[in-house]
Amino acid sequence: MSSTDGRADRFAGHVFSTPSLLAQALTHRSAGAPHNERLEFLGDAVLGLVVAEALYARWPKADEGSLTRARAELVRESALAAVARRLEVGERLVLGPGEMKSGGHRRDSILSDALEAVIGAIYLDAGYEVCRRVVLPWFEEAVSAVPASKVGKDAKTRLQEWLQARQKPLPQYVLEHEGGEEHARVFTVRCILADPALDAEGVGGSRRAAEQVAAEAVLGRLAGG
Amino acid sequence: MSSTDGRADRFAGHVFSTPSLLAQALTHRSAGAPHNERLEFLGDAVLGLVVAEALYARWPKADEGSLTRARAELVRESALAAVARRLEVGERLVLGPGEMKSGGHRRDSILSDALEAVIGAIYLDAGYEVCRRVVLPWFEEAVSAVPASKVGKDAKTRLQEWLQARQKPLPQYVLEHEGGEEHARVFTVRCILADPALDAEGVGGSRRAAEQVAAEAVLGRLAGG
Repeated sequence: MSSTDGRADRFAGHVFSTPSLLAQALTHRSAGAPHNERLEFLGDAVLGLVVAEALYARWPKADEGSLTRARAELVRESALAAVARRLEVGERLVLGPGEMKSGGHRRDSILSDALEAVIGAIYLDAGYEVCRRVVLPWFEEAVSAVPASKVGKDAKTRLQEWLQARQKPLPQYVLEHEGGEEHARVFTVRCILADPALDAEGVGGSRRAAEQVAAEAVLGRLAGG
Repeated sequence: MSSTDGRADRFAGHVFSTPSLLAQALTHRSAGAPHNERLEFLGDAVLGLVVAEALYARWPKADEGSLTRARAELVRESALAAVARRLEVGERLVLGPGEMKSGGHRRDSILSDALEAVIGAIYLDAGYEVCRRVVLPWFEEAVSAVPASKVGKDAKTRLQEWLQARQKPLPQYVLEHEGGEEHARVFTVRCILADPALDAEGVGGSRRAAEQVAAEAVLGRLAGG
């Protein structure tokens, strides 16, 4: 895919009603104002929603944590820079002389920022629906390629796989408390790892639900540490 | 403002075509599936865009860093919980027995998550434009109330104000290098603080632009430390 038909009012099939928005999106701050930083702020939010919605629809069983991690992966700087390269953003960037000399049009951060700015410019030019139709194809393959292991499995399964991959002992789930009225039981389960030694509690309306909550909490700590 | 006219298919003036989306958005995971966590993921992204666009439009001189900080402030958990309380989200929340007993419907995190989930539900129910029209009024006052000192001033001014407010000495800007072709000069300026002792470099196409970049870099470090 190419970003242009050689015309300054087009990007990836979108023909701008206000071509100055596109020009601004392709102007790095080193080249002076009006540059693309504010558009980048806006485009980052547009892209966040486009990708969030695509993941939400494509992976109906993924929980919130998995979706959040998958989105972070899809919109990380290096991934956006790769999209920007396919769309030949670097060739169209306007840089100041310092950045030009130091190869700024090849730098991941500058390319990724410019791509977000272009998304913001399309959004301002034509609204959310049009912008989504232009932007979604850039990410569709990556959205579908998210490993099912990351978005399709429940917390207990993911915890088990995490431990097995590292040849660690499997977790223990201990029922710590069971209470509540007959028709509204409350279960408290502790999930305990031997290595790394840590544990977390989960509460739920069934023993199984409480185990999932506890496993998710343990996964959160493993990811955080 | 109230979130309902006493009907299970309405929220803040929006009448759901698919009322089950609203019911799901108001169901905490402690009450079992389908609960609101996936909708919260989606609503968080929708809200991010609604607020980003509002700030972008309202504060045309704010730079990206200021906009990003203002947005974080507007969508932080306690701010969302306050909106949720005005919309009486807590009264409509479905919680598991454990959360109910421990006052979960008054907790900031649960209220804020549910509000985001409702936003996601409205988005799925009616699309971005309708959702924005419903959601924007909840935040308009806060968007307008962002202090101009945070979003309306350039980096040198903000740095000066930051230092004056703390009775610290003003920064020095030292031109370290000037080069490039006649029609494409490159200026390198160092911004130096005495207290706290730190400095940062800025590069730009003019001395003034380089000073702004250097001041912004220093502000970034002050905010980070």
